[in-house]
Amino acid sequence: MKIIFYGFGEINRIIAKKALERNYTIHGAIDIKPELINKDIGEIIGKEKLGVKVHKKLEEAIKEEKPDLVIHATSSFLNITYNQIIECVKNKLSVISTCEELVYPFIKYPSLAKELEKEIKKNNVRVLAIGVNPGFVMDSLPIFLSTVLNRIEHIYIKRSINASKRRQSFRNKIGIGLTKDEFEESVNMKRITGHVGLTESLGLISTALAMNYDEIYETKPIPILSKNKRVVGIKIYGKLLYKSKEVILLEFIASEKNRDTDTIKITGEPNITVSIRGGIPGDDATANIILNSIKPFLNLQEGLRTVLDLLKLHYS
Amino acid sequence: MKIIFYGFGEINRIIAKKALERNYTIHGAIDIKPELINKDIGEIIGKEKLGVKVHKKLEEAIKEEKPDLVIHATSSFLNITYNQIIECVKNKLSVISTCEELVYPFIKYPSLAKELEKEIKKNNVRVLAIGVNPGFVMDSLPIFLSTVLNRIEHIYIKRSINASKRRQSFRNKIGIGLTKDEFEESVNMKRITGHVGLTESLGLISTALAMNYDEIYETKPIPILSKNKRVVGIKIYGKLLYKSKEVILLEFIASEKNRDTDTIKITGEPNITVSIRGGIPGDDATANIILNSIKPFLNLQEGLRTVLDLLKLHYS
Repeated sequence: MKIIFYGFGEINRIIAKKALERNYTIHGAIDIKPELINKDIGEIIGKEKLGVKVHKKLEEAIKEEKPDLVIHATSSFLNITYNQIIECVKNKLSVISTCEELVYPFIKYPSLAKELEKEIKKNNVRVLAIGVNPGFVMDSLPIFLSTVLNRIEHIYIKRSINASKRRQSFRNKIGIGLTKDEFEESVNMKRITGHVGLTESLGLISTALAMNYDEIYETKPIPILSKNKRVVGIKIYGKLLYKSKEVILLEFIASEKNRDTDTIKITGEPNITVSIRGGIPGDDATANIILNSIKPFLNLQEGLRTVLDLLKLHYS
Repeated sequence: MKIIFYGFGEINRIIAKKALERNYTIHGAIDIKPELINKDIGEIIGKEKLGVKVHKKLEEAIKEEKPDLVIHATSSFLNITYNQIIECVKNKLSVISTCEELVYPFIKYPSLAKELEKEIKKNNVRVLAIGVNPGFVMDSLPIFLSTVLNRIEHIYIKRSINASKRRQSFRNKIGIGLTKDEFEESVNMKRITGHVGLTESLGLISTALAMNYDEIYETKPIPILSKNKRVVGIKIYGKLLYKSKEVILLEFIASEKNRDTDTIKITGEPNITVSIRGGIPGDDATANIILNSIKPFLNLQEGLRTVLDLLKLHYS
């Protein structure tokens, strides 16, 4: 099982380390950062030399031999990752990606998804995007919990993250320390995205549970301010509405004042409330879910797949 | 979609009511209780007459037309249900059963399971047993949660049931009100079983997560006594050991003094702790999971299936 890493930033380095522990073979990596090109992958992840390196281009990395799988982690946005995924597909490589917008691309990008699907089928490969969120906490876990219900009235999911414990890049991503005006400008310039995935989670839930809806939307990031008017965190909401009634409410909150905890409340017959004390850690769990997807992924039918292909048991 | 109910006791009546709400067609039922024979199913479940009745024998119920599916709920024990399942299979009927020991029969009954499997394949049907426990709380839910882990050291699952809220038949099943001696006699005579399913849950988890083990066992029911020395509840433990170390601990507790709550703690990389406040209600959720299994069940390959066939995403 030979893996190539497309993008060799933080997440793929975590995955590469864990993949080695699980005895997968690393075939190489590609990245555009000049300081990484031609470096040994083992050295980058703080281990002994592996004799495989970071290439600038995919074609260089697969010139001599093809890997069995691409693990792709470059960006949350499909308009950035689209050509990268297509490049792999055209080279007849199957891909597991962390790209949040690719986890369920059919709502934000219906025509792009169709185009991608066509190319994937033409080349007889499989592509799946998955992660801890979207992919688990706010979608596949509540979908699986619905198995014990006979009727669903409302779903509320809250993911609360203690931002004070997180790495600086995450703190920057949510605008910690900015003024309200700086925050709003950063949001408008899409420098602050906070969380990408609420629309995708709503799409997965509504598809799995065959829910009708009139509208699926998410709010912009809303700043949480300290007494001295600096941003200490953000909130984002995602909603699914049917006949003007809220059916799903997703709440993402990351702040210096919040505890790490995930909560899922499903109201219906019966009601169930699930809390994950201490929450599920983001980066680490994303790496784990990617690795745990490899074996079932290889048994999936060719095509553009979603986590729903791996999860047949739910309210139906 | 025409369903026949094999056994028309408490659980199958709940399922029948919910099945009607979901617009499934009830084809009939079979039961051995003389007071039920020839009664209209609608009347038994407190609704209007349905024009279908309870038969004494399966052959009578399928004489004119065959149903699409048998929902079987008669006993927790495979030595009692075995011939009933075989009877359905020989009549080329697929079966979803609530039989606890059939949820994962390969540990307690390896040769019986093989025989059953042979007969099922010969007749080209599918058989699945599932329920809330075994089938969900103590096995498929923790198996699904393992998706976010990279390494599993220990799994602890506690299902705590407030016996004071439960129906009398449940209270009898756990020996409420008996003396310690009466309790022990009842356990030895298998009148008190408390909970059937710990071995089956351990089998499901160890198979899904490819865990090695030297021993899987469950304790007898242990009485919880009040000050005046009467039984107010029971505890049962299930354990999986590898190299003399406990890897999985299942704790089932049902008592008048306990709260309804389910807890799953997985220790490893990372640790996760999930609590279901108020627990998942037993009978009702069993009925729901059976109904929610119907559609995915019909897409399964023929054979003796388990919940693992519906749940491909987990630590792997």
